[in-house]
Amino acid sequence: MRFRVAIVGATGVVGQQFIVALRGHPWFELCCLAASKRSAGKTYAEALRDEATGAQRWFCEEDPPEEALSMPVEDASQLDPSKVDIVFSAIGSEQAMELEPLYAKDLPVVSTASAFRYEDDVPILIPGVNLDHAELIRVQRRRRGWRGFITPIPNCTTTGLAITLKPIHDAFGVDKVIMTSMQALSGAGRSPGVLGLDIVDNLIPFIPKEEEKVQTETLKILGNLKGESIEPAGFKVSCTCTRVNVREGHTEAVFVSTKRKCGVEDVKEEMRKFSGCLKPLGLPSAPEEMIVVHEDPFRPQPRLDRDRHGGMATVVGRIREDPVLENGIKYVLVSHNTKMGAAKGAVLVAEYLAKYGYV
Amino acid sequence: MRFRVAIVGATGVVGQQFIVALRGHPWFELCCLAASKRSAGKTYAEALRDEATGAQRWFCEEDPPEEALSMPVEDASQLDPSKVDIVFSAIGSEQAMELEPLYAKDLPVVSTASAFRYEDDVPILIPGVNLDHAELIRVQRRRRGWRGFITPIPNCTTTGLAITLKPIHDAFGVDKVIMTSMQALSGAGRSPGVLGLDIVDNLIPFIPKEEEKVQTETLKILGNLKGESIEPAGFKVSCTCTRVNVREGHTEAVFVSTKRKCGVEDVKEEMRKFSGCLKPLGLPSAPEEMIVVHEDPFRPQPRLDRDRHGGMATVVGRIREDPVLENGIKYVLVSHNTKMGAAKGAVLVAEYLAKYGYV
Amino acid sequence: MRFRVAIVGATGVVGQQFIVALRGHPWFELCCLAASKRSAGKTYAEALRDEATGAQRWFCEEDPPEEALSMPVEDASQLDPSKVDIVFSAIGSEQAMELEPLYAKDLPVVSTASAFRYEDDVPILIPGVNLDHAELIRVQRRRRGWRGFITPIPNCTTTGLAITLKPIHDAFGVDKVIMTSMQALSGAGRSPGVLGLDIVDNLIPFIPKEEEKVQTETLKILGNLKGESIEPAGFKVSCTCTRVNVREGHTEAVFVSTKRKCGVEDVKEEMRKFSGCLKPLGLPSAPEEMIVVHEDPFRPQPRLDRDRHGGMATVVGRIREDPVLENGIKYVLVSHNTKMGAAKGAVLVAEYLAKYGYV
Amino acid sequence: MRFRVAIVGATGVVGQQFIVALRGHPWFELCCLAASKRSAGKTYAEALRDEATGAQRWFCEEDPPEEALSMPVEDASQLDPSKVDIVFSAIGSEQAMELEPLYAKDLPVVSTASAFRYEDDVPILIPGVNLDHAELIRVQRRRRGWRGFITPIPNCTTTGLAITLKPIHDAFGVDKVIMTSMQALSGAGRSPGVLGLDIVDNLIPFIPKEEEKVQTETLKILGNLKGESIEPAGFKVSCTCTRVNVREGHTEAVFVSTKRKCGVEDVKEEMRKFSGCLKPLGLPSAPEEMIVVHEDPFRPQPRLDRDRHGGMATVVGRIREDPVLENGIKYVLVSHNTKMGAAKGAVLVAEYLAKYGYV
Repeated sequence: MRFRVAIVGATGVVGQQFIVALRGHPWFELCCLAASKRSAGKTYAEALRDEATGAQRWFCEEDPPEEALSMPVEDASQLDPSKVDIVFSAIGSEQAMELEPLYAKDLPVVSTASAFRYEDDVPILIPGVNLDHAELIRVQRRRRGWRGFITPIPNCTTTGLAITLKPIHDAFGVDKVIMTSMQALSGAGRSPGVLGLDIVDNLIPFIPKEEEKVQTETLKILGNLKGESIEPAGFKVSCTCTRVNVREGHTEAVFVSTKRKCGVEDVKEEMRKFSGCLKPLGLPSAPEEMIVVHEDPFRPQPRLDRDRHGGMATVVGRIREDPVLENGIKYVLVSHNTKMGAAKGAVLVAEYLAKYGYV
Repeated sequence: MRFRVAIVGATGVVGQQFIVALRGHPWFELCCLAASKRSAGKTYAEALRDEATGAQRWFCEEDPPEEALSMPVEDASQLDPSKVDIVFSAIGSEQAMELEPLYAKDLPVVSTASAFRYEDDVPILIPGVNLDHAELIRVQRRRRGWRGFITPIPNCTTTGLAITLKPIHDAFGVDKVIMTSMQALSGAGRSPGVLGLDIVDNLIPFIPKEEEKVQTETLKILGNLKGESIEPAGFKVSCTCTRVNVREGHTEAVFVSTKRKCGVEDVKEEMRKFSGCLKPLGLPSAPEEMIVVHEDPFRPQPRLDRDRHGGMATVVGRIREDPVLENGIKYVLVSHNTKMGAAKGAVLVAEYLAKYGYV
Repeated sequence: MRFRVAIVGATGVVGQQFIVALRGHPWFELCCLAASKRSAGKTYAEALRDEATGAQRWFCEEDPPEEALSMPVEDASQLDPSKVDIVFSAIGSEQAMELEPLYAKDLPVVSTASAFRYEDDVPILIPGVNLDHAELIRVQRRRRGWRGFITPIPNCTTTGLAITLKPIHDAFGVDKVIMTSMQALSGAGRSPGVLGLDIVDNLIPFIPKEEEKVQTETLKILGNLKGESIEPAGFKVSCTCTRVNVREGHTEAVFVSTKRKCGVEDVKEEMRKFSGCLKPLGLPSAPEEMIVVHEDPFRPQPRLDRDRHGGMATVVGRIREDPVLENGIKYVLVSHNTKMGAAKGAVLVAEYLAKYGYV
Repeated sequence: MRFRVAIVGATGVVGQQFIVALRGHPWFELCCLAASKRSAGKTYAEALRDEATGAQRWFCEEDPPEEALSMPVEDASQLDPSKVDIVFSAIGSEQAMELEPLYAKDLPVVSTASAFRYEDDVPILIPGVNLDHAELIRVQRRRRGWRGFITPIPNCTTTGLAITLKPIHDAFGVDKVIMTSMQALSGAGRSPGVLGLDIVDNLIPFIPKEEEKVQTETLKILGNLKGESIEPAGFKVSCTCTRVNVREGHTEAVFVSTKRKCGVEDVKEEMRKFSGCLKPLGLPSAPEEMIVVHEDPFRPQPRLDRDRHGGMATVVGRIREDPVLENGIKYVLVSHNTKMGAAKGAVLVAEYLAKYGYV
């Protein structure tokens, strides 16, 4: 199993995370780095260099792989589909709207952009949660006349929420969800991102468009494939999304009302049963456990728990009864917004699609 | 109107905040600083001195008043009631359990401790919200045979929540409340408090006993005086309380279901009408507005809004409909946990009690 | 004494600080806000509005004065000199190079930009330190044929260093200075500024061009007016400038070698004598003390000391002998980089120039 | 090569770091965890449990090894020397004064405490820097009549300074050193440590006794073994030590005057040559490079560079000429204060002593 993969938007923060996520990958061989015309023709090392200061604009904790630094950067609008098997798209939504359909004519596109998430024939996949939605890819191909397809991953704040709701929904039926997020700075990116000046001794109670995304995507992901589209899950989600002074790892305080009565131990039991669901698939980036349940009430904490299972686990704690909602349960989760919630999560999706014949 | 006031627990953090809150007070004259036996007999300046390092253990942003520094510190267990009209108690709950009843035999005690908050004949007063509960003081005196009384203020996380729910409850009837707090470091105090090491790049999703306090106190404060006790308000509150890397100012994301349908503008209108409620009382520490409503969706922010009206206002923003709860409204609030939520809030309570004949 | 003042670059961060520094000023009346063509023609409130989000881009802790919000913004390149007595320039150095000479044809320009700091006929003034250098203004006018003139204030990192070296240099003769700064985030501005992501749990050991500025400016400020230029002070300065996770207030660890032997108490004595030097001048923005000397070894701390005397004092502590340098003394200082080190410091310079006949 | 090792002070922060540093060690087998009487008799897991909250008081990022959790904790005052080959001492200096000599009667003690650092017959070892000082161990044994010995490692702020000065001193002769440190919170420990409340938006310019330690230890480490003691290096060191809002990793701005002229490239060259000095010794915890030199002027940064080579490298950048000192060179270094600067550094010392016959 060897697939040639391209990263589009390779010089940006998410593109860099793709490079790190793909380093030494057993199935995926990085064969193409694409970016804007401005970078095209340079080596990747040159394209990362800040012209004003000479500094290397590389933002991952891990060093950039030598082999990537010497690769040429190609013009994203001129990608040659014959040289690539899978495209990882790390570009902004406006660009994605234009470029991703070009690639999808010939190639599978796994994207972190929101551009196509809300289209009828586009699934938002989370391995272990809704892989059956991948069938929608056939509809998408047929309707659009593409040999390839587009599969976006969810917004990073949706990911942990959908994963933890999945076993609850399957076992007890979710009826209502109320969630307050305390999101990491890395989620705001770098252009312009959040200034130190603004977040020191502070938090910011609003992230434009974030709440709408979470509310919509969670229902689509937990919905059912009916004919040629997804019927959203039959419950409601309400969030307040805030930004806190944490580098990486989104924390969410979740309150859930279920259709059937469930106790705290029931929820833990269902989460634990669910946790191993990816093991049988043999996907290289899959976490050993999808959900890790903490008994220590002081956990999860973003700094201590975000990197669990390589940043691919959702860590849950403080599961307890909620006295307000009918059949109420409340808990806190931490999910790594730039690992499972971004590039590495997209690589995991691609692994599934590659192994199970969609590529 | 001149009253002689004592601060018990004067060397601690809250005691210091009382000293600052009372500086230049038009009615209250600081005549006694009391603390543990260890400090008794020293001047206040001496009592603040750390023996190991010689540093002055003073923790307020404002400098300590010269006149306080030269005052003698008295033994809290030997307070002479003939020299004092009002006692401000800034001691821990265990000590309060023992000492506050001693003082209350003769004197009004306004306390930041939780020791007596949940007693049947003890009101938890917030000016503007439930001053009618002050009548319970007569019951308390009669039952306990005290000339004085104990009136604790609420837990600092309860304060902003109860204040913002008040106009909603009065106008539309609150049915359910779900709240996630993002609380400031100062709320954890200094013994031991929260280490920088633990909160840098992090948050802590649990504050022992905090959620229970908020859930219970909010209902008592918004309840009705019925005979010789308070009938708690007939709704339910569920919280998740977290600690974030902010020095001062608790932020709360609130989701409310009301009995009668209300729109966003209705809520703003009720909050604004409510805001001036303290003006007619002429209390020196009262904020010009109890609630300040922001239209900017990026507000309130703790660093920018906590000091509004001298830290005595609750600042609200992001009021919007909640799609999940019946007649749902959601908003974000910031409340200064060590001003309105602690010493300065207690001084405001004492001002009411003094002016209206309870002292 | 009434002077009509204009702020050029009024919509930027430093321009906003000028507006705050001038609020209620007894001598200076704000009569003109000027900015780029893009803002010209709008009211100041409109010019501050972010088009994408609708948020008000106002960055000072203090609220913007109502009277400023309703003022029209004028095109900085079309300033009418007949309506203004003093120009405060808050623009970047490139723009300053072009616009400040235009204004200086007719008007005094007090600037925070570095554009003209290193010109022979341009003094870098700090009240109390080198006001005699103001004589250079006459040279500047004559040589350049201007009715007005340009007087830049120093780089904000230079300010506290020059102020604290002044009494040492006068009394003992400075021979060598080694300084490591720990600078606040506000000094990096907002375009792009320092991202929270980059400074959380971190510091950055380099600030481009900063060290050169401090090294050059300190010597010019402490130099002597000789004929038609300043002879730089005859000692050497070496710095390492770093950025730390502090919002406001630059901290500097200074090591000084003096020509004549001096003890710790001598230095304190000279600093204290120097501190009152501005009082006789009667300038409204002057600090009561230029230097505040702490005996507590844990001070100065930026959060606790930056606002001393309205952010206009330099706070010094840990004065002790240095065992390495000849006649060595070392100390730590905190200086408010956006008050004394920026707009409010420039207003203080203008007060001197206005009162003493340069305007 | 198998040695049985004991950790004394095993429940504290440094003791925990020893457990992590020894996990899977190829030569050292953890056979004894010792602590105060209070913990003795419990399992290690029980001893870590906080009685009030039930939380596990474990402070390393890495999880505690299962095998350690089930080990019994022994009374540190009753250590049985027949069961142990090497003692790692992680106790405070007062206790160390009493207990370490007891152990040293029979056993080699490698200690992080400062208690014996300044004794004539006690070397402060840094592998690669002054291993020849280990000969002093024979003097120590003879004079004190011990079969074992005590070898403390340096204060964590000394470590990076001494390592980077070593190649400069050997090649050019150091004459003067001026250093300002920006130290991490972990260096202050946890009892009481630095409160978040005090360090948010702040720094603290004083660390009691730290400057004296660095000034004395650096000279001893870089001194020469002469007869039965160390002749301190013939230069002088002056520091200002500050605490900044960084979790781990001490940053130091160093200014050096050398006896013989040296350029920036000479210093880099000497540092690079020195870097491989530990390789031939084959010690398991030795870093691949002792010093890593950065060309990027924005490095080293504590968060990005502290973990280089497992936290055992000293990372240097901004090497440039200093215009003030004679033959002046200045640079910035980052050293991991709780890896190379504490337990893991002590393990490295023990590896040397074990391999070369001192144990």
